[in-house]
Amino acid sequence: MSRYTYDNNDIIYALASAWGNSPIAVIRVSGDGSIKKFSELFSASETLLKAFSHTIHYGKIIDPDSKEAVDEILVAIFRDGRSYTGQESLEINCHGNIIGIEAIFKVLEKQGFRSAYPGEFTFRAFMNGKVDLTQAEAVMEIVNSQSEIAHSLALKRLEGNLFNLINEIKIKVVDALAVIELQLDYEEDEIIDETHFPKEAIEGALKRVESLLDTYTIGRLYSEGCRVVLAGSTNTGKSTLFNLLLKEERSIVSEIHGTTRDYIEAKTHLEGIPISLYDTAGLRDSKDSIEQEGIRRTRGLIKESDLVLLVVDSSIDGYKLSPEEQILAKEEKTIVVCNKTDLGNVAVLEGSYPLSAKTAEGFKTLKEEIVKRLQKGSPKTDGSTVVIESARQKKELNRACEALKHSLEYFKETLPLDIIAVELNEALDALGSLSGEVTSEDILENIFSNFCVGK
Amino acid sequence: MSRYTYDNNDIIYALASAWGNSPIAVIRVSGDGSIKKFSELFSASETLLKAFSHTIHYGKIIDPDSKEAVDEILVAIFRDGRSYTGQESLEINCHGNIIGIEAIFKVLEKQGFRSAYPGEFTFRAFMNGKVDLTQAEAVMEIVNSQSEIAHSLALKRLEGNLFNLINEIKIKVVDALAVIELQLDYEEDEIIDETHFPKEAIEGALKRVESLLDTYTIGRLYSEGCRVVLAGSTNTGKSTLFNLLLKEERSIVSEIHGTTRDYIEAKTHLEGIPISLYDTAGLRDSKDSIEQEGIRRTRGLIKESDLVLLVVDSSIDGYKLSPEEQILAKEEKTIVVCNKTDLGNVAVLEGSYPLSAKTAEGFKTLKEEIVKRLQKGSPKTDGSTVVIESARQKKELNRACEALKHSLEYFKETLPLDIIAVELNEALDALGSLSGEVTSEDILENIFSNFCVGK
Repeated sequence: MSRYTYDNNDIIYALASAWGNSPIAVIRVSGDGSIKKFSELFSASETLLKAFSHTIHYGKIIDPDSKEAVDEILVAIFRDGRSYTGQESLEINCHGNIIGIEAIFKVLEKQGFRSAYPGEFTFRAFMNGKVDLTQAEAVMEIVNSQSEIAHSLALKRLEGNLFNLINEIKIKVVDALAVIELQLDYEEDEIIDETHFPKEAIEGALKRVESLLDTYTIGRLYSEGCRVVLAGSTNTGKSTLFNLLLKEERSIVSEIHGTTRDYIEAKTHLEGIPISLYDTAGLRDSKDSIEQEGIRRTRGLIKESDLVLLVVDSSIDGYKLSPEEQILAKEEKTIVVCNKTDLGNVAVLEGSYPLSAKTAEGFKTLKEEIVKRLQKGSPKTDGSTVVIESARQKKELNRACEALKHSLEYFKETLPLDIIAVELNEALDALGSLSGEVTSEDILENIFSNFCVGK
Repeated sequence: MSRYTYDNNDIIYALASAWGNSPIAVIRVSGDGSIKKFSELFSASETLLKAFSHTIHYGKIIDPDSKEAVDEILVAIFRDGRSYTGQESLEINCHGNIIGIEAIFKVLEKQGFRSAYPGEFTFRAFMNGKVDLTQAEAVMEIVNSQSEIAHSLALKRLEGNLFNLINEIKIKVVDALAVIELQLDYEEDEIIDETHFPKEAIEGALKRVESLLDTYTIGRLYSEGCRVVLAGSTNTGKSTLFNLLLKEERSIVSEIHGTTRDYIEAKTHLEGIPISLYDTAGLRDSKDSIEQEGIRRTRGLIKESDLVLLVVDSSIDGYKLSPEEQILAKEEKTIVVCNKTDLGNVAVLEGSYPLSAKTAEGFKTLKEEIVKRLQKGSPKTDGSTVVIESARQKKELNRACEALKHSLEYFKETLPLDIIAVELNEALDALGSLSGEVTSEDILENIFSNFCVGK
């Protein structure tokens, strides 16, 4: 259950541009009667009331109590049916100052406008038929995308490519169902023979559903990205490797053991794959309670990571992995990096990657291995293909896939036609849920409440 | 000299909303021919070419090389003379994703648009007579303002209150100068008698200039804010006081000495005064090189601060200030805070403020003292008065003030009229510089280069 009740007629507002000081900020307002209500706060109210859709008007926003100007603004008017939400809407273009934005919010609240829930503008767009559910999801994916490929994939979904593909599949299933139901109406034995069974249509639908399901790993990889953790003892050069991966100085690099008391997180991407990179506290026994806490967090990060780079100082004579490191080194998701090869006197462990984080020698090979491991044999994409990304989409496609498979099996087993029809209807229902046609209010509210405010 | 040459006919662009992921971002474009040039990148190019000023158009921005859509956008059209800059302009409303914004930048660059210099849009607005120099400065002050009072003061300047006041003063000086020059044309002795000398006009102008100069301290206080540093030994509860001042948990509060290795900065405000608050490393001798570095930085922060809160643990029996703290305690800008009064057994130092940062007992009194010290007897303002804020404004007013004073002195000394006229002209020049009428290109470029990009 969502914490919010989206189905209402409130006039809602939210900051739609990023939070922070900047030349311009954009506040979105949507709801029936919003233009009339807002005009009461606006110095050029008459102009606003008579304004055509998609026009911009200069004026001051006035506090109804003090009658003082709160800001000089531009207001864009969107009439009923022609806005993002499909409702009468406006966009306030104000000075991008946090104090000023908050002052405008106060004035809007006085006028009875309500701060929007997460995703509430897009929820209204969906309810008013401006976008389907896959496009609504694409909107958020575009906002959150962390690489060019991810951005391009999401834009394709927003353009309706996924929606169109789902519709093509649905047409095949509807065709098959029509044949079956015709048989059901006229045939007495309720069994269908080989020549009349719409095998080709169902198999065609199934094939497309399956290949769409195959894109999930890659879609997930580019949208969610991966968590890569740098682990190992203190003073092995983890921070130097961290900086090398970021190509800029973000972490403190120090000669003293246990410098990085807690973990440092940074965002980057390798070949279009978004990476959350963690530089962690060295794994060593410590009596310092803060350091102990840091090591506890390191262990937590390793557990939740997609890939661990276990960094070892290969310049130390007779270097040995600690018992904890030995276990970690054997895990499938671990790459052992033998660092400090520049210091000579090197003992590179078997199956590990030699590196000088200082001179970047060996870095190219290591980076290639990292990308290879993260892709896990997923098909590559340049961003131009249709790809699914959300767990919800995967779930519905799985349901459609199972139902289509069952319908083929049941035919083979010469089960009655009405049982086959149930499966085809189940497949249609799953595909309808995917695009949001047959999705319940509760589920919808849950989906939209994961969006960001202002969208 | 500014690093940039502002006087050019380039088509410029910049992100005008804050940098970050959000539903919407706004990219500003300005320059002659910008609509035509942009239309070549836009899916609905014909619509754009024919569009009226202040209208909004939906379409896709297309990469001219790949012919692929880069984003779905709304474009607002501002025709010549009706835009912020006074030039033909447009505003691109795109998805607020950093990757997507950068992709649009690339496409704009391909079309020959140039990334704008700091303040370049406002520079063009000034050159095209859309704003005077005090209003141009007010634009930046609004964006940067850190409290409601600061925001309100800057908004008043943007509305032209300072400009109008300067003009009133100028009228008085011009009147006085007219009388003097009339005398110069017709009188032979070039000396003026008491009855003809425009003493009242000059004194009136001087009075207004002086009272405007008096507002500088308060203008500065609200616009620039103050730096307040929490200093003292480790484990005296600095972080607890830091959190109390911020009213939220931002700093790590720990029982172990030397936790805060480096300083933590946070922004807040007390009674409308913007505060940069620093929680610093404890001042103690340490062999840990990182800790030593932290202490070195603390000393630097103290030096640059407006106010130091020297926090002392008053619960320790026979507590003594270190030699360094003793010197610090005597400085005019230091308030000694005797913390941990909740632990009983308290020895409050003379002239210090007792406090329990834990229970907030004594906090109200301390806060009042902080505000009093920061205001340093400046006149209070509720944000509705005209106040100067920039060092440049102060300098020009000082110049006007000196010249007006000289003109009165020279009259007393019965110096020739043409010498008095020189002083009045000097005052007019200073006032003209203030509003930007007689300011040189070089100086202008220097002023605008301190603005932010996109404004």
